[in-house]
Amino acid sequence: MSDIETFAARAADLLGPRGFTQDPDLVDPWLTDWRGRFTGRALGLASPATTEEVAALVKLCGEFGVPIVPQGGNSGMCGGATPDDSGHALVLSLRRMNAVRALDPATMRITCEAGLVLQTLHETVEAEGLRFPLTLGGKGSATVGGLISTNAGGTQVLRHGMMRAQVLGLEAVLADGSVFSALTPLMKDNRGFDLKQMLIGSEGTLGIVTAATLKLEPAIAERRVLWAGVPTLPAARQLLLHCQKQAGEALEGFEVMAQGTLEDVLHHLPGARAPLGEPHGWHALIELVASADTRDALGDLAENVLASAFEAGLLEDAVIAANETQAEQFWLLRDSVAAAERDKGPAVQHDISVAVERMPDFVDMAVPLLEREWPGTEAVAFGHLGDGNVHFHVIAPEGVDPAQWYEGDAKAISEHVYALVTEWGGSISAEHGIGQLKRETFGRMGDPVKVALLRQVKQALDPDGILNPGKLVP
Amino acid sequence: MSDIETFAARAADLLGPRGFTQDPDLVDPWLTDWRGRFTGRALGLASPATTEEVAALVKLCGEFGVPIVPQGGNSGMCGGATPDDSGHALVLSLRRMNAVRALDPATMRITCEAGLVLQTLHETVEAEGLRFPLTLGGKGSATVGGLISTNAGGTQVLRHGMMRAQVLGLEAVLADGSVFSALTPLMKDNRGFDLKQMLIGSEGTLGIVTAATLKLEPAIAERRVLWAGVPTLPAARQLLLHCQKQAGEALEGFEVMAQGTLEDVLHHLPGARAPLGEPHGWHALIELVASADTRDALGDLAENVLASAFEAGLLEDAVIAANETQAEQFWLLRDSVAAAERDKGPAVQHDISVAVERMPDFVDMAVPLLEREWPGTEAVAFGHLGDGNVHFHVIAPEGVDPAQWYEGDAKAISEHVYALVTEWGGSISAEHGIGQLKRETFGRMGDPVKVALLRQVKQALDPDGILNPGKLVP
Repeated sequence: MSDIETFAARAADLLGPRGFTQDPDLVDPWLTDWRGRFTGRALGLASPATTEEVAALVKLCGEFGVPIVPQGGNSGMCGGATPDDSGHALVLSLRRMNAVRALDPATMRITCEAGLVLQTLHETVEAEGLRFPLTLGGKGSATVGGLISTNAGGTQVLRHGMMRAQVLGLEAVLADGSVFSALTPLMKDNRGFDLKQMLIGSEGTLGIVTAATLKLEPAIAERRVLWAGVPTLPAARQLLLHCQKQAGEALEGFEVMAQGTLEDVLHHLPGARAPLGEPHGWHALIELVASADTRDALGDLAENVLASAFEAGLLEDAVIAANETQAEQFWLLRDSVAAAERDKGPAVQHDISVAVERMPDFVDMAVPLLEREWPGTEAVAFGHLGDGNVHFHVIAPEGVDPAQWYEGDAKAISEHVYALVTEWGGSISAEHGIGQLKRETFGRMGDPVKVALLRQVKQALDPDGILNPGKLVP
Repeated sequence: MSDIETFAARAADLLGPRGFTQDPDLVDPWLTDWRGRFTGRALGLASPATTEEVAALVKLCGEFGVPIVPQGGNSGMCGGATPDDSGHALVLSLRRMNAVRALDPATMRITCEAGLVLQTLHETVEAEGLRFPLTLGGKGSATVGGLISTNAGGTQVLRHGMMRAQVLGLEAVLADGSVFSALTPLMKDNRGFDLKQMLIGSEGTLGIVTAATLKLEPAIAERRVLWAGVPTLPAARQLLLHCQKQAGEALEGFEVMAQGTLEDVLHHLPGARAPLGEPHGWHALIELVASADTRDALGDLAENVLASAFEAGLLEDAVIAANETQAEQFWLLRDSVAAAERDKGPAVQHDISVAVERMPDFVDMAVPLLEREWPGTEAVAFGHLGDGNVHFHVIAPEGVDPAQWYEGDAKAISEHVYALVTEWGGSISAEHGIGQLKRETFGRMGDPVKVALLRQVKQALDPDGILNPGKLVP
């Protein structure tokens, strides 16, 4: 038997027929990322059922020098869970490990395995009158392990922080097959620096997350969704500051889009209507929420926030969704931006951040600059203003050849956007990660001291480079 | 010239007369920790004035193989800033670097250097109507750099988290003299895992913190300090949960002590009075706070919290401090516990934590167990119940020889306490760190996987071991 055959036999023996396969019909669907940008090859697909199996498998891979590509829902944005095309790697799916190990409403905590799908997590805790305050478009496939490994964001970061902020405890298998076990949440623990922080956001390059203890919040008993028109993006930021001051902890989301973007969305969604009668330079979608204890005051709060904003001259027009149906319609407008833009032809997308207070200035500087430099393009910024993170898309001029544009101008545009963001002290990846998509750019534009630190830690924790090679670490 | 003489000449040349000294009168005061438990020797004291000087000095130390002991206010609890007795090390004081680089009330952030003293930080931001929500006994000497390097706690962790939660950005000099520069606060940045988290709490073993960007809060406009008597520690926890539910974000502190501890404090403080007329098994000190926006409702909130707690049978008696003077008196009782116990003779102190919800059970188990095992001792638990962190002191039997007791029973008692805490999945250091005091215990009782991880990171980032050797890393 060849080494590969021996490895496969040992893996099959270890994991059983449900845990290991080389059948192309079963393996192939997991070799392309969901956006279809990356396709790789693999010697097989492992689906261990327990942490012990993961640990044993990692040891086996170490013995045979088989690289491991950990994978959750395969809905990442940067190809971080797709193997390269050598065919040497093993895809290690965590999807079978989806048990809830403990759910305690009194302490508002859940301990679950890495393969638990976000939507299932939501439903599980909602049944107990609780909620998990992180959500995103891929919630039907994204897993807890993937969310942790990529430190996922979403539309609730303003109030609740990113995935890092939800993780109270962690279990992971390290490169040598040892199990890092820190599921017991200690609010205070100063035995050295917080080791689990290295694993959060390391994209499977330092360890394989197998389980986590997560923070929960009281269920939302009531929400008010507001739509406001403002003249400019700096004005939107002033409105945001006003809402933060007036609504405090009740402010759950604050998303923005320009008038042109709204029009694209209305064009894309048959039957959709603009929330406000007149056009405005920019639009803000604002969500206020209350738990059972505070729900009675929420209606008044929403009205007071708007009234005082009007008085202070902070908005041109605004409306509160009359009911949950209308609230859903407002959110549908926001959630359809990406799809609406796809209608308009080829586009390059950038998930960038700068310091929160500088984002309006950044957008006001970058949009005309790019549109001037590449005539016919349309630059669109939308998303999470409150986090200093906007999604910055540049749409190709009409009539270009997509393949040619993607290979030429699109690359030059991205290069320019990333250079601008770097110059402003910002991040070329606010929430999507690095994966294989941005690794080269990160290596080139990243601060050499930080890149060197990442490399040193990677080398120390995974000296043979078997954990997700070719991802993140330049 | 010897190597040491050459090094000293080069350091003096680099830092100037204010920046480097070997004068014993100037060096010696910094060779003993403030508790007087550790004394070391050093070849000199460096006090650089800029990050560039720190970087150049670290390079020089690397060249000559001179170990560096970074030091802030020298008020740590575990000897983490005291050199060993070889005399080979250089003490690197950050106290001269105490500038405020930027203070922006609009974004509620301050960027300051590592040597800024906590009390000065408090006063600086209070002048702008803001506050820095972390305080502790050593605030007159503790520096920002020391607070970060030890991830300090204090009495406000319940509401605001530890130092880690206040750090938005960081600047540090690494072992090779490179400068890790991440002062610009990005709410979202997913270029790999969050590198600054490695430096927070690493006790100067991975890098020397030179500056930080910290989060600020609106100033407290009003507070209400409550004192409540409850029969048991589990009852105190029920009262805490009630307060969290009713008061939410207004709950700033929740500290506990047993009746016997209160009596010791009253005995220690001439003229002090018990806040309540009758004795109770346990006492809780509760602080509620409000900013200018919410101050009007605070009085009612405090009364409602107590009234509903009475109604629910959650307390035996309670009182709200009538004015700020009385509020200060209540806090003085809490802040005098450590001193009151010192009156009673030799004692060993343990800064331990377990999962928040298990702390009452832990104390109820551990106190009688220890007092039974070592007859004549008195075990005392007090402090931050809401964080799962209590300070657990064991006072020697009357009449023992202190030196003999510290060498014998005291060590065995600590060993037992740490073993119990480890068995309960807790931490042998909740907020004071490891330093040199607990390094051996940590190495022995710590999870071997975690200890190995710490060692790997230390080896990778400081291969020659020049940063604070003999501390933290077993």
